[in-house]
Amino acid sequence: MTSEQLFSQIRSKRSFLCVGLDTDVNKIPRHLLSQDDPVFAFNRAIVDATAPYAVCYKPNMAFYEESGAKGWESFRRTVEYIRERYPDMLIIADAKRGDIGNTSKMYARAFFSENLADAVTVSPYMGYDTVGPFLQYEGKWAVVLALTSNPSAADFELQRMEDGGYLYEKVIDTACGWGTTDNLMFVVGATQAKMLRGIRRLIPDHFLLVPGVGAQGGSLEEVARYGMNGRCGLLVNSSRGIIYADSTERFAEAAAEKSAELAAEMAGLLDSYLK
Amino acid sequence: MTSEQLFSQIRSKRSFLCVGLDTDVNKIPRHLLSQDDPVFAFNRAIVDATAPYAVCYKPNMAFYEESGAKGWESFRRTVEYIRERYPDMLIIADAKRGDIGNTSKMYARAFFSENLADAVTVSPYMGYDTVGPFLQYEGKWAVVLALTSNPSAADFELQRMEDGGYLYEKVIDTACGWGTTDNLMFVVGATQAKMLRGIRRLIPDHFLLVPGVGAQGGSLEEVARYGMNGRCGLLVNSSRGIIYADSTERFAEAAAEKSAELAAEMAGLLDSYLK
Repeated sequence: MTSEQLFSQIRSKRSFLCVGLDTDVNKIPRHLLSQDDPVFAFNRAIVDATAPYAVCYKPNMAFYEESGAKGWESFRRTVEYIRERYPDMLIIADAKRGDIGNTSKMYARAFFSENLADAVTVSPYMGYDTVGPFLQYEGKWAVVLALTSNPSAADFELQRMEDGGYLYEKVIDTACGWGTTDNLMFVVGATQAKMLRGIRRLIPDHFLLVPGVGAQGGSLEEVARYGMNGRCGLLVNSSRGIIYADSTERFAEAAAEKSAELAAEMAGLLDSYLK
Repeated sequence: MTSEQLFSQIRSKRSFLCVGLDTDVNKIPRHLLSQDDPVFAFNRAIVDATAPYAVCYKPNMAFYEESGAKGWESFRRTVEYIRERYPDMLIIADAKRGDIGNTSKMYARAFFSENLADAVTVSPYMGYDTVGPFLQYEGKWAVVLALTSNPSAADFELQRMEDGGYLYEKVIDTACGWGTTDNLMFVVGATQAKMLRGIRRLIPDHFLLVPGVGAQGGSLEEVARYGMNGRCGLLVNSSRGIIYADSTERFAEAAAEKSAELAAEMAGLLDSYLK
């Protein structure tokens, strides 16, 4: 998917919502546990309920990996379901992988060779060698961690470099030379919304994946105000706030309601801030 | 496993060799492809051949993940085999995971709750939140990336911070406060052997996992000279140089020979440099 195609989806749905599939088998409604693959059954219901309001799904790989081979199979079935029913959706494997040449190529193949994702989140610590192999696939994306939403972003990301800038700025500045606005996005946490103004100076045109709205306390309005560009340039993720909005048999309906609320707010923000 | 138990293994085997199981189904000898699980069959033969000369195995998760659920199953079977036959071996899942609290807990559970690894390599970019959950398991280890062996370590790890030190030094200095010498190791590439002298000033007592000897050109002698401490403090990894030493039916025999050569060199270095 190109950035133009992604923007076209955002325009037509009036939403830049990414639904995070952090599906924990210990948190899904009890009545699903009798199913043959409860995680897939949950995801399918969530996807059907939220698809009208979302442009993107983001399976969080830790939650699948935790169940080993069975979890990987739930992930694969979820992706196949989305591809079949909602072929215009962007799928981001939130894997935060990061290794060197030879190994990084294997990670890229794991996700891209059988079309299990359109994008993979990648940690930049080891430099270009980590990110490069993900940029070799036509229509696929690397989503590089820049400034994350967690408290300990202060440990390294927000440390000052020799030139006075932050490490995350160095990462953005260096990494944006590795790819294009059609194969490279950055992760910027919503809890760091005010930093978005400075980030937009460095990368006016790239898409940003923004987690941290909702459960982690980030403001959607601030993210749009400081981060939106002429092609929206934002994918705002919500995971727990949507998928665990209700723990009863009404879970999918509640997820639809939460997504619809966020999408309605996003429609207003697109009207206000799309330049 | 404690650091004392690990050192005891090193002393009794006179080796600090870690064998990297970067098992690529496209590179293993053809005659194994008729087996029901060729990757496991290859690993089992490699483990049996190299176990007398090694204290540690390091499955590289990308190579298993590339085959999805089936690959995860090959990984699990390999670990179970090592646990059963060679219960004193340290097993490091080379996964380079790195995510925040909630998600990092799931990654730690994926590897530790069913004893699929004794240690997991972790990327420090997002700070303490990433590493903390791995330190909560008795007898288990987080192996934090510090200075890696790849050329693009220069992109960020070798960038200078405000105080004039390198980012990797900041990582070591900060991260060594998060755990102890019994649950925290660091990755330092063998191609950076001369940097080990400075690293030993920061962390005299921690174990270091050192990849990059062999295929990547690092010198084992330099690693020992600059990096060994009073309890050895080193695990030196070789992957391709051992497991692909021969591509015929002699592959296991050749792997044993290569491991024996490295172990013999290590025995000499332990005599020379163990303080």
